[in-house]
Amino acid sequence: MVPRYSRPAMTAIWEAEARYRIWFEIEAHATEKLGELGVVPPSAAKALWAWWATNPAIDVAAIDDIEAVTKHDVIAFLTWVADQVGDEARFMHQGMTSSDVLDTTLAVQLARASDLLIEDIDALLDALRRRAEEYKYTPTIGRSHGIHAEPTTFGLKLAQAHAEFARARTRLVAARADVATCAISGAVGTFANIDPAVEEHVATKLGLAVEPVSTQVIPRDRHAMFFATLGVIAGSIERLATEVRHLQRTEVLEAEEYFSPGQKGSSAMPHKRNPVLTENLTGLARMVRSAVVPALENVALWHERDISHSSVERFIGPDATITLDFALGRLTGVIDKLLVYPDRMMKNLDRMGGLVHSQRVLLALTQAGVSREDAYKIVQRNAMKVWESDGALSLLDLLKADDDVTGRIAPDELESSFDLDYHFAQVDTIFARVFGEGGGAALANGPVPA
Amino acid sequence: MVPRYSRPAMTAIWEAEARYRIWFEIEAHATEKLGELGVVPPSAAKALWAWWATNPAIDVAAIDDIEAVTKHDVIAFLTWVADQVGDEARFMHQGMTSSDVLDTTLAVQLARASDLLIEDIDALLDALRRRAEEYKYTPTIGRSHGIHAEPTTFGLKLAQAHAEFARARTRLVAARADVATCAISGAVGTFANIDPAVEEHVATKLGLAVEPVSTQVIPRDRHAMFFATLGVIAGSIERLATEVRHLQRTEVLEAEEYFSPGQKGSSAMPHKRNPVLTENLTGLARMVRSAVVPALENVALWHERDISHSSVERFIGPDATITLDFALGRLTGVIDKLLVYPDRMMKNLDRMGGLVHSQRVLLALTQAGVSREDAYKIVQRNAMKVWESDGALSLLDLLKADDDVTGRIAPDELESSFDLDYHFAQVDTIFARVFGEGGGAALANGPVPA
Amino acid sequence: MVPRYSRPAMTAIWEAEARYRIWFEIEAHATEKLGELGVVPPSAAKALWAWWATNPAIDVAAIDDIEAVTKHDVIAFLTWVADQVGDEARFMHQGMTSSDVLDTTLAVQLARASDLLIEDIDALLDALRRRAEEYKYTPTIGRSHGIHAEPTTFGLKLAQAHAEFARARTRLVAARADVATCAISGAVGTFANIDPAVEEHVATKLGLAVEPVSTQVIPRDRHAMFFATLGVIAGSIERLATEVRHLQRTEVLEAEEYFSPGQKGSSAMPHKRNPVLTENLTGLARMVRSAVVPALENVALWHERDISHSSVERFIGPDATITLDFALGRLTGVIDKLLVYPDRMMKNLDRMGGLVHSQRVLLALTQAGVSREDAYKIVQRNAMKVWESDGALSLLDLLKADDDVTGRIAPDELESSFDLDYHFAQVDTIFARVFGEGGGAALANGPVPA
Amino acid sequence: MVPRYSRPAMTAIWEAEARYRIWFEIEAHATEKLGELGVVPPSAAKALWAWWATNPAIDVAAIDDIEAVTKHDVIAFLTWVADQVGDEARFMHQGMTSSDVLDTTLAVQLARASDLLIEDIDALLDALRRRAEEYKYTPTIGRSHGIHAEPTTFGLKLAQAHAEFARARTRLVAARADVATCAISGAVGTFANIDPAVEEHVATKLGLAVEPVSTQVIPRDRHAMFFATLGVIAGSIERLATEVRHLQRTEVLEAEEYFSPGQKGSSAMPHKRNPVLTENLTGLARMVRSAVVPALENVALWHERDISHSSVERFIGPDATITLDFALGRLTGVIDKLLVYPDRMMKNLDRMGGLVHSQRVLLALTQAGVSREDAYKIVQRNAMKVWESDGALSLLDLLKADDDVTGRIAPDELESSFDLDYHFAQVDTIFARVFGEGGGAALANGPVPA
Repeated sequence: MVPRYSRPAMTAIWEAEARYRIWFEIEAHATEKLGELGVVPPSAAKALWAWWATNPAIDVAAIDDIEAVTKHDVIAFLTWVADQVGDEARFMHQGMTSSDVLDTTLAVQLARASDLLIEDIDALLDALRRRAEEYKYTPTIGRSHGIHAEPTTFGLKLAQAHAEFARARTRLVAARADVATCAISGAVGTFANIDPAVEEHVATKLGLAVEPVSTQVIPRDRHAMFFATLGVIAGSIERLATEVRHLQRTEVLEAEEYFSPGQKGSSAMPHKRNPVLTENLTGLARMVRSAVVPALENVALWHERDISHSSVERFIGPDATITLDFALGRLTGVIDKLLVYPDRMMKNLDRMGGLVHSQRVLLALTQAGVSREDAYKIVQRNAMKVWESDGALSLLDLLKADDDVTGRIAPDELESSFDLDYHFAQVDTIFARVFGEGGGAALANGPVPA
Repeated sequence: MVPRYSRPAMTAIWEAEARYRIWFEIEAHATEKLGELGVVPPSAAKALWAWWATNPAIDVAAIDDIEAVTKHDVIAFLTWVADQVGDEARFMHQGMTSSDVLDTTLAVQLARASDLLIEDIDALLDALRRRAEEYKYTPTIGRSHGIHAEPTTFGLKLAQAHAEFARARTRLVAARADVATCAISGAVGTFANIDPAVEEHVATKLGLAVEPVSTQVIPRDRHAMFFATLGVIAGSIERLATEVRHLQRTEVLEAEEYFSPGQKGSSAMPHKRNPVLTENLTGLARMVRSAVVPALENVALWHERDISHSSVERFIGPDATITLDFALGRLTGVIDKLLVYPDRMMKNLDRMGGLVHSQRVLLALTQAGVSREDAYKIVQRNAMKVWESDGALSLLDLLKADDDVTGRIAPDELESSFDLDYHFAQVDTIFARVFGEGGGAALANGPVPA
Repeated sequence: MVPRYSRPAMTAIWEAEARYRIWFEIEAHATEKLGELGVVPPSAAKALWAWWATNPAIDVAAIDDIEAVTKHDVIAFLTWVADQVGDEARFMHQGMTSSDVLDTTLAVQLARASDLLIEDIDALLDALRRRAEEYKYTPTIGRSHGIHAEPTTFGLKLAQAHAEFARARTRLVAARADVATCAISGAVGTFANIDPAVEEHVATKLGLAVEPVSTQVIPRDRHAMFFATLGVIAGSIERLATEVRHLQRTEVLEAEEYFSPGQKGSSAMPHKRNPVLTENLTGLARMVRSAVVPALENVALWHERDISHSSVERFIGPDATITLDFALGRLTGVIDKLLVYPDRMMKNLDRMGGLVHSQRVLLALTQAGVSREDAYKIVQRNAMKVWESDGALSLLDLLKADDDVTGRIAPDELESSFDLDYHFAQVDTIFARVFGEGGGAALANGPVPA
Repeated sequence: MVPRYSRPAMTAIWEAEARYRIWFEIEAHATEKLGELGVVPPSAAKALWAWWATNPAIDVAAIDDIEAVTKHDVIAFLTWVADQVGDEARFMHQGMTSSDVLDTTLAVQLARASDLLIEDIDALLDALRRRAEEYKYTPTIGRSHGIHAEPTTFGLKLAQAHAEFARARTRLVAARADVATCAISGAVGTFANIDPAVEEHVATKLGLAVEPVSTQVIPRDRHAMFFATLGVIAGSIERLATEVRHLQRTEVLEAEEYFSPGQKGSSAMPHKRNPVLTENLTGLARMVRSAVVPALENVALWHERDISHSSVERFIGPDATITLDFALGRLTGVIDKLLVYPDRMMKNLDRMGGLVHSQRVLLALTQAGVSREDAYKIVQRNAMKVWESDGALSLLDLLKADDDVTGRIAPDELESSFDLDYHFAQVDTIFARVFGEGGGAALANGPVPA
């Protein structure tokens, strides 16, 4: 975790205190059920909850001190709790293993992290929707291969991003469900020393599903799927960040990250305004993605469990969720305050002398009976002159002077081929798909085999 | 694609002929709708389908020859079809771009590949279920850290794998839905030259969903999610393969890959029977996973599209699906014919002189009023003697001779702590969760935020 | 391997015939030494070499047929050779294991692949040097963050690439040395059944080093280092390809991939000239890099060997080397024929109204006694006006009208701050470092701990 | 960075104070040279070094406070130094850019990290050598595919690891040289505002090489190569850790991680002694490797530089080096104190009823004139009986009773085929290669193309 790329709410999930609070809840809920089952006195859970109701501070340093002696984190915690609660606390943890507590705790942490990430995406979706509506009909050049292709609108660019992050949300909800399971099943998952009812009780209380079959640990394919999903979302962040970086480059300058008065772009070059936030997001996306491979390598534990996954998760659990949370927040800020320059978009759109309308002329010629091949040659030979003039020449003017064109297409039809609005006829349709009443989501799901 | 790691049904999906067949269907369905819309004569689609009804062979070599001239694959194909069908064929592809055809084709291929993979997993689930039922109560040692822990059953091991591959199936169904979309939206996705109704028609006919908003291409976060999912499944394959490899190692030998009469394990060492299939699966899992990172890197295309993703997909599209299909088939065969040695499992379980029951004695001592710490020391000091005797000594015998034990636990209670069946009381419960009427699936899904 | 991304010389290394030819040479050289040692009759090697001198065709299909029966590739090959050579051939392979042949063969293949790749890099270095000299003093804008920074020359851009690929060459030579080892040491590497002199003899004959200690197989850290090195080189390819893609984008257009007369950039848009080769290189770089992770995962084989690495290497051995060879060739072609537009570079350099000289004015002001902070504010407030005018205003003009400037800097000094040549004073120095007599290489190596 | 997986010496390199100390040295050395060149007064450097000679504490918090205002880390630092040193300090940083300082600092940090890692490897090599000599002739079974193959010695296993980590050392020295370069070349690397002599001076003083051509930043292929090298070393760590984990598993138990008196292997199961250190190393290896992909993705910066690499390096710079340092230290401890059980090795070696000698009998039969195929069948049919008896039967006994054998091989020859020492004849040769006077290193390097 790098502090400058973190936000408090997500960081708090991974702090020692939060972890101990979850441990306590698991132990207390379990003790409660064990009390009901007659395995321990019902008074045990009552004592635990009574103490908890006092909203006690967790003394992390004291627990660390005990751990330095016991060399066992869960035992150290239980010892400290027993010191606070008194004699009744000795019934805690009956029939349980450390992994029951640790793995279920990780599930709670990942579920909470998911909830924050889903909120983050919702905020990003709001920003994207607002800005997309704002520029719904703002003409801008669509580019393939970095080369001007045909006109589109800036709103459509943002609508695409909205649809992509709506998918990210769906995936995150699924990933959350995948990791949000509770296992309290003993040393090799047989419930030899604990009733499965305890697991079910704790799961319900913590809002988790029951792990159908565990083996001391919760299977790590679940976590692999979780981190893989974060990696895909990071890819989508990189895509939108890259778009902004392109739009801000000097020669394009159709949009810019917000630049506050008095801000310095460079200590040496007073003229600079750099897309540093989206460049940073590009790097952060790499880091979130870097968790995917070790998470995949964690799946194949030996037999019922080995502990190789543990050190990996101590890194990627906090790092990937904290970094993704920070990145989503930063991206939302970028979109929210993005400086958009419609005039410059129009200027760029025009700068190639009307080349972006070449396809429509091609279609007009073929509809006028010219073979596709001949039509292509006619348009291309004029287009290349405009291209080489760096936009100083106009395609429309050249075509008007080309007998192979004028002989086939009437002047007003030729002019109309250069009409910008022609390209925007379906903007409403697409917006309805993306933002309409559940339309986008419905369309996004294909048929599923039985 | 490596031929020895491929099967015909999956390979066929990626062959030129299959690709051209999908191209034809897309073009013919589109022409049909364009006919309905009055853009082209309705006779055009009729002519195309009439020819198709003759079940014509696709002359891949002829199309290649044309491509060598036109330098454009889609144009070459259209030219060849026109040669076959005649004049009516010239109305094909009206208002479409090559990417409309190429990306929708990839969607069809990935959907078909998914269907085969889902079938593969179903076959694997069948094999796992059958073998799990067969060994439901077969005692075997559960191991954590590669060290004997407590007894479990071989059926439980396989039930765990079943639950894991049931999750793989669920994930694959979701991944299929993610990539099974149709885009026919033109050069930058604005539908400038084609009615969205064409896209909807083709999508319906091909069993795809409509891509809500495309940009010449279908967004690559979909494909990233697909390949990430294959990577997670590969992780699960590696886990089960690793289990078999461990079970077959000389000192364990609780199970073996099927070894046919007359087979040679090694050209030099006639005594060898090696787990070569599951070792191979371990390597194949690495290869399927290796598609994940480039698929993630493909997401951030420039602006409306660049073509950097294309070469990546020419590799990983076939390679990852063909290899995973082969691997699932091979794994199913391994499980189906696995030689299982219950006697050896029992022998291994017993070889540590009863150490695997140490926890129960610990619990019995604490229930008899000994502090946990003292109980631990009493059991550990006896256990370490057995450990160091390499199983020659018996824990039960030593405990019977230890005054600290005999003073607290009655002989018959001590004996009963070494009862194996104690560990299997919940096997039915777990099997019901995994194999019961939808039980496993229901339990696997946690609560989802609104 | 994808045929369209392959070249014959590299592909040939990985074909069955080439592999069998290496097998034969290993076996014949080994038999020769065994003859000298008196283990087999010296006539055996003589018979083998006599047959080989006839330059016999390798009948791959016949060997395949035998393998279909024996289920063992090396035995099938030996059988076929024996059929050709006669009775003397039965002494081949005495005391050897299949892995001795297979691993040493892979070493020969990777060494040969390295040699081709080194040639590829040499050709690329030649092209880079030639074009760098050509544009040594061609002014162009240097960009940080995609934003105009300060002037540089196009030759310097290419000199940087030259230095980077010179490092790639050095790394490749080291990677080749790492994998070019010979192991003929028996079932677990103890030489129990074969004299180490055989290994030394074969190594010498094949131009390999002796593997100091093997364990049936050559250790896979060597191969991991090899593929990691290819991955780094792929990163450098992506960097240069990305530069070209940026330079070709419509708004920049300072350079273009060669576009032949009659070529079509897009079937639908006759005006397009797309950087498809460098986009393709970006994707191919991802694929070469994708070999790194499975190669790293291959290192930790179990005990003396398991065979999980084998399937991985059947993919990445050919794929990574063939794809990198193709990519280097393609990149060399791109550089060799790159269309460079110095006029456009100058036009872009000027388009920001002289903003690129802001640092020099800042320095001039500070040298004139203005505090750095004040100087920054003075330059920035003028620069931002130019920035917002999209280059319509001139920084020099504005500064000439700013009393805070004119009071401190004389007009001719101010003008001289906008002198372009000032930036190119050290171009010779840098070129001497990169292309000078070994200078670059010498400088590139830092001090090394003893 | 996870504190529990870190050691102070490596962590210190990455702390703010260490970074600021390097910054100062770079600035002071540069000012010194600028003084010699007459760009600034020579008194400036004198004042800086005079203050430095007082060994002043670096007030990180104060610098942070200034940065909170200036929003620029380097400017904040310079301001703080100026406050300490006085007026002369204002000449610092003349003509330099922040990246000159930041990238050169990273080079110093990575070089120092490399030095620690090289020391770590030297310590590991010492431990491996010592233990290898100790068990040079200790018989143990060599395993391929996890199955008993033929005898080897435990010393040979460790010698193999020694050779592998000797290669790791060589690679690390090369990786250090790759990143240990100094760049002080200005905003786009043209030295427009600073003499290259300053760069050379600082490089010499800091023990770095001069970067031949930089572009505001040092090219990131260097760093990619560095982290890729760490990844390969992590692979070797995983290999040796996996070996120990296998050796410690209950059924094998040929070696164990040191287990201190009073240590608890499991809180629930008093009998457990788990290989937790090497399992942990397996996970740490995954984390070190996870830095490789983002480092590769960092190479293709846009134009002269973008800043996407920076956030990545803030993570992986400390994380990969600190984790690898910790892992090497832990592995050295494991090897140093490894509990080795030669008796158990012998017991395991014997447990398959002599099957491990099957190859020698096969060779004896073929030398006695039996065809290889018949010999294989004869040995295999006896071997399979032993195999299925789980070592209860003896291969030698069965062969003595097999007429096909006794008719061809004399009893004493047959007995001698089961002689263990036969396998160890070349142990000295291999040890000389690995540990001999430079022998191992010399052999490891193959011929290199001119």
